[in-house]
Amino acid sequence: GTLGGLGLALGLWRRQAALAAAREDEEEKELRQRFMAPPVSGLRELRRRRRELRSRMELLIMETQAEVCRALTALDPGASFAVDSWERKEGGGGISCVLQDGEVFEKAGVNVSVVSGLLSEEAARQMRSRGKSLKAKDGKLPFYAMGVSSVIHPKNPHVPTMHFNYRYFEIEEADGTKQWWFGGGTDLTPTYLNEEDAIHFHKTLKEACDKHDPKLYPKYKKWCDDYFYIKHRGERRGIGGIFFDDMDSPSKEEVFQFVKSCAKAVVPCYIPIVKKHCHDSFTPEEKLWQQLRRGRYVEFNLVYDRGTKFGLLTPGSRIESILMSLPLTARWEYMHTPPESSREAEILEVLRNPKDWVH
Amino acid sequence: GTLGGLGLALGLWRRQAALAAAREDEEEKELRQRFMAPPVSGLRELRRRRRELRSRMELLIMETQAEVCRALTALDPGASFAVDSWERKEGGGGISCVLQDGEVFEKAGVNVSVVSGLLSEEAARQMRSRGKSLKAKDGKLPFYAMGVSSVIHPKNPHVPTMHFNYRYFEIEEADGTKQWWFGGGTDLTPTYLNEEDAIHFHKTLKEACDKHDPKLYPKYKKWCDDYFYIKHRGERRGIGGIFFDDMDSPSKEEVFQFVKSCAKAVVPCYIPIVKKHCHDSFTPEEKLWQQLRRGRYVEFNLVYDRGTKFGLLTPGSRIESILMSLPLTARWEYMHTPPESSREAEILEVLRNPKDWVH
Repeated sequence: GTLGGLGLALGLWRRQAALAAAREDEEEKELRQRFMAPPVSGLRELRRRRRELRSRMELLIMETQAEVCRALTALDPGASFAVDSWERKEGGGGISCVLQDGEVFEKAGVNVSVVSGLLSEEAARQMRSRGKSLKAKDGKLPFYAMGVSSVIHPKNPHVPTMHFNYRYFEIEEADGTKQWWFGGGTDLTPTYLNEEDAIHFHKTLKEACDKHDPKLYPKYKKWCDDYFYIKHRGERRGIGGIFFDDMDSPSKEEVFQFVKSCAKAVVPCYIPIVKKHCHDSFTPEEKLWQQLRRGRYVEFNLVYDRGTKFGLLTPGSRIESILMSLPLTARWEYMHTPPESSREAEILEVLRNPKDWVH
Repeated sequence: GTLGGLGLALGLWRRQAALAAAREDEEEKELRQRFMAPPVSGLRELRRRRRELRSRMELLIMETQAEVCRALTALDPGASFAVDSWERKEGGGGISCVLQDGEVFEKAGVNVSVVSGLLSEEAARQMRSRGKSLKAKDGKLPFYAMGVSSVIHPKNPHVPTMHFNYRYFEIEEADGTKQWWFGGGTDLTPTYLNEEDAIHFHKTLKEACDKHDPKLYPKYKKWCDDYFYIKHRGERRGIGGIFFDDMDSPSKEEVFQFVKSCAKAVVPCYIPIVKKHCHDSFTPEEKLWQQLRRGRYVEFNLVYDRGTKFGLLTPGSRIESILMSLPLTARWEYMHTPPESSREAEILEVLRNPKDWVH
């Protein structure tokens, strides 16, 4: 009768609830395994808001972090990543993964941060590279920023340093309009030039860009050469890659898909180069040249890099995560000039006059 | 008769002229021996204008350069200074003396520069630390700047790094008024704290200041602690010394005499410390801590130091002379924290909370 029907319905409901809970546990377990640490916004929250771009971007940067860390550990099995989850007093937090003094990698950092809070108009202006003016309520602008950023410094001077960063910003103006944009890039800094590697690296990035718009790679390749310029040396930091900022068209969805393609290209553009050269033999002179180039890396990052400068000036930012981009060791010699036609002079020439690696 | 008298007079005149020429040659020889290289403004010119402050200051910075180089070479007899005289296209030039990879010194640079030309109003404003506004004719201000600056990085972690800089500026405004001021300072950056050394260093500087005005040392000691602050680390670069800028009173002569006393104090405040510790034994761990502190030195110089920033932004400046302040080698470890009550923690405490070393 009715009571039996009610009991059956109740039983069914209980079973379904139990199944749903089990499924949720499974999903949580799976996500935990996929990531280096629980995401800043929490798994449940990310799942609940799974259709929102903020959540999808946070999942993408978490996945990218884990993918890169796994790929590096596979090549350097004796080493392991120290994983630090940190909170920011002013809102949000991050996860820093750092591998130090491995067999293959001297220092590798992969950092995720998801932060929010209030920005001064001045700070907001600095955030947008083209310096668009933003109207603030009471001089303060609510903002939301997230990104993954990484620098990999290998030990062997025949394995280049690689850097990438993909980020998303939102700023709310006084009238409630939300400005949003993406930025990012991937670039390579070899100690010695290897044309085959340079072509592979650029080609992989070009393919990722071309899927979205054939105009993107040439534009962002040039932006990269211009951005990583050490003015006082008249040299670029490395042989480039892609770099973009303030990207807010054609649509949020399309830019996100583009950023996703770029993030997915990090492992295939870099890891084959590491594999190829990590057992190459090298001389003490080659190691010394690497250390001098590391010095230039430090010069760029501390003097010019907008991300580093912005980080150092932002109250409550995590200094150790910002400066993990610096190499383990670096060297400065007064008036060091490599002999003409040497392999050292060869890379300098390319740093002074960037080349097109793919057409 | 008359002819005989004329012959006698002519003979006398010839002898006097020959004597004067010989005296001049002697003086030139002497000056050449006193200095590391011929002064930028030329010896004859400096002698001709010997009463002018510009000439006296140029002689002082040249003497200081030679004094310091001689004192360092005496302690590191196997090493020698590379001496480079350079010209600046836009006007003036300099003399860079660099000792690299000695027994006692890892890298020691002592640089003199004497430059002149035209400054934009913006650049002129940046030059004066208090940002006084200056009225320009056609947007340009004729300027004259000279100084001696030096950084000494020893090998042994028990010997501190020392920096000093003494400089003089003149700027001519649209109405012809000449603004002039002096700046400078001497400061110490130990890897490990040695209270006796800290007291000797500060006491020697205090005595140099006190001869002129007892208010100077306390004021410039504090200015030094404030200036060499690595904001993002919450640490000073070292245990300080003295630092001042924009000094234009009580009179040009009195400020020059003060600067002269400070410059003369460089050797006595530092060299005894080097002598005392350059043969101290040290462990690999102590060398590593030195390398990490060198990293902080690089951070200060590239991120905050006004002289370095100004130099990097000035067209025609000599980059190698500006960046000779960087150590030969430096190191950055992620999340390095010395154990409590260690000698490493002891120096950090003093860098976070500066102490008064003399009263």
